[in-house]
Amino acid sequence: MNEQTITVTASVLEENVRTAFRAIGTSEASLDAVTRALMHASLLGVDSHGVRLATHYCRMLEGGRLNKAPVLSIDQRGAAAAVLDGDDGLGHYAAYEAMRLACDLADSAGIGAVGVRRSSHFGAAGAYVLAAAERGYVAMATTNADSMVPLFGGAERFHGTNPLAFAAPVAGGDPWLFDMATSSIPMNRVLLYRSLGKELPEGVAADAVGATVTDPHSADMVLPLGGETYGYKGAGLAGVATLLSAILTGTTLDPDFIAMVGSDDISTPRNMGHFVLAISPDHFIGRALFDAGMLRYLDRLRGAAARPGTSVMAPGDREWRERDRRQAEGIPIDLDTARFLGFT
Amino acid sequence: MNEQTITVTASVLEENVRTAFRAIGTSEASLDAVTRALMHASLLGVDSHGVRLATHYCRMLEGGRLNKAPVLSIDQRGAAAAVLDGDDGLGHYAAYEAMRLACDLADSAGIGAVGVRRSSHFGAAGAYVLAAAERGYVAMATTNADSMVPLFGGAERFHGTNPLAFAAPVAGGDPWLFDMATSSIPMNRVLLYRSLGKELPEGVAADAVGATVTDPHSADMVLPLGGETYGYKGAGLAGVATLLSAILTGTTLDPDFIAMVGSDDISTPRNMGHFVLAISPDHFIGRALFDAGMLRYLDRLRGAAARPGTSVMAPGDREWRERDRRQAEGIPIDLDTARFLGFT
Repeated sequence: MNEQTITVTASVLEENVRTAFRAIGTSEASLDAVTRALMHASLLGVDSHGVRLATHYCRMLEGGRLNKAPVLSIDQRGAAAAVLDGDDGLGHYAAYEAMRLACDLADSAGIGAVGVRRSSHFGAAGAYVLAAAERGYVAMATTNADSMVPLFGGAERFHGTNPLAFAAPVAGGDPWLFDMATSSIPMNRVLLYRSLGKELPEGVAADAVGATVTDPHSADMVLPLGGETYGYKGAGLAGVATLLSAILTGTTLDPDFIAMVGSDDISTPRNMGHFVLAISPDHFIGRALFDAGMLRYLDRLRGAAARPGTSVMAPGDREWRERDRRQAEGIPIDLDTARFLGFT
Repeated sequence: MNEQTITVTASVLEENVRTAFRAIGTSEASLDAVTRALMHASLLGVDSHGVRLATHYCRMLEGGRLNKAPVLSIDQRGAAAAVLDGDDGLGHYAAYEAMRLACDLADSAGIGAVGVRRSSHFGAAGAYVLAAAERGYVAMATTNADSMVPLFGGAERFHGTNPLAFAAPVAGGDPWLFDMATSSIPMNRVLLYRSLGKELPEGVAADAVGATVTDPHSADMVLPLGGETYGYKGAGLAGVATLLSAILTGTTLDPDFIAMVGSDDISTPRNMGHFVLAISPDHFIGRALFDAGMLRYLDRLRGAAARPGTSVMAPGDREWRERDRRQAEGIPIDLDTARFLGFT
């Protein structure tokens, strides 16, 4: 956003986030998970899903929408499949535990999939696939979310910006990491352009009846990835997220969520679902050949010819560079968040 | 293409495809699979991947690139994971068998994943997820392919148009079916626009050094889904396909393939990889609730408000309508294919 920020050292920021959650009685397991996920996003430059959300989550924990001390339960349904019940706690806790379980299943079965139910907003999907990649697995994570994306040709909000995230381990380096919304742009890009007084690009946003607009003040929805002409692809991918996260787990459909932000009701759980998958390379080509293949692929990719004035990157390269910068120089946070976290 | 066609009854077309493959000594198992996959695409209106490819495949079978009588072998690597060796036969045979195995694994483990190696072009990815959905599974299938898509910001061909296909069963109806290229448009759209003398839309194609073009005669590459501004998403999804299909299986990277079409070498196998995944709803929310959830989701989706003059559809709706029409009225085939299949 076009707003004033202060810059805080990562370790201090992490400690203050932890303290804020602890102060309202959040369980240690929950606050470890939410802090890790928020710091993931804030370090990698995904500020919309970073520590600024701490204020919102604390409000929901105090309002009763979120359970401060959830007891997770696991229903193992096969050698490679399980359903995890989040007990209406923070989605970050349920999602990290689900991915841990998926990796454990993959250790013996080769792959593991875990559906999550009775969960809540889990922040950046990339946090969970990264956790799996750091343990050596290829991983996928997805969730559905509050509807703000019309269908292709649609005139009302239907799907959420439903992310699909994937990661893969890279021997001796940072993982390949790809975390995308299935909408053209995130909704907070619209808010940013409003505050900057800037026109949106063509074909990424629509007004309340689905007509494409570039004036951010008229924009009420963000279009599916692919825009006006190829938006059936983004809409289909959003459907994949809903299918795996909500239908396979029996949780809330995108248009049925109590609004994450702006609802008077902050005491009723939203029953959000997620889906995570871990794949063990040991059970396919084998570790040594997988590692060699990844390195060869990334070498080819990073060495590919680029257009004048630009460069080509692997998914994650931009984020790792930002992480290095922010670890060295600190993390910018907006003043409201700074106040909430006790910095001003 | 802007070309003359004749219209043939589906059952007759299927018989003639079968006969063409049998005439050159293709094994019964191989020709059953390739015929089924080609008829899938031709019935659903995906003509680029339909029976017109029979000519090409037969030429490759006779040239020795493809093994006419492959013996598939399976290396089961865990309760939910296996690698299938296609013995350099038709990719359709390997892919249908891989998906059958994935479903079998999912029956007991909850999910099943099969990597395929030593395979070849498998036609439409949707054919394999549909086969799984017809058996009651949620499924995914992907493959990498000959490079013709630059990276985001790239100035040379890198990934293929690498498809991602997903399907889910719908109780009492046709499956939810979604099969997309991770490029903005397929390469054969460029060829079509050349023959029609039409300008391409903005941001979907590039010349040989990566500059965006709308003149189809200057177009040498198709851009990743998301185009000039958001093409990192399409490029990332193409990477997912390569990761699962090629790196996890140790097969050929996109830029390393002997060209599918146009190479003098039609005797060396291309060692293409695929990846298929089957998920058993019985092992997540359970069949009855899954079926109810799918129906409710599709009702909501098909009932969502549409922009004036348009309508909203679930993935597959357009294809099922086309299948019904073509089953009633016949399938149009171009004259070269008609001649090859003995119709003229």
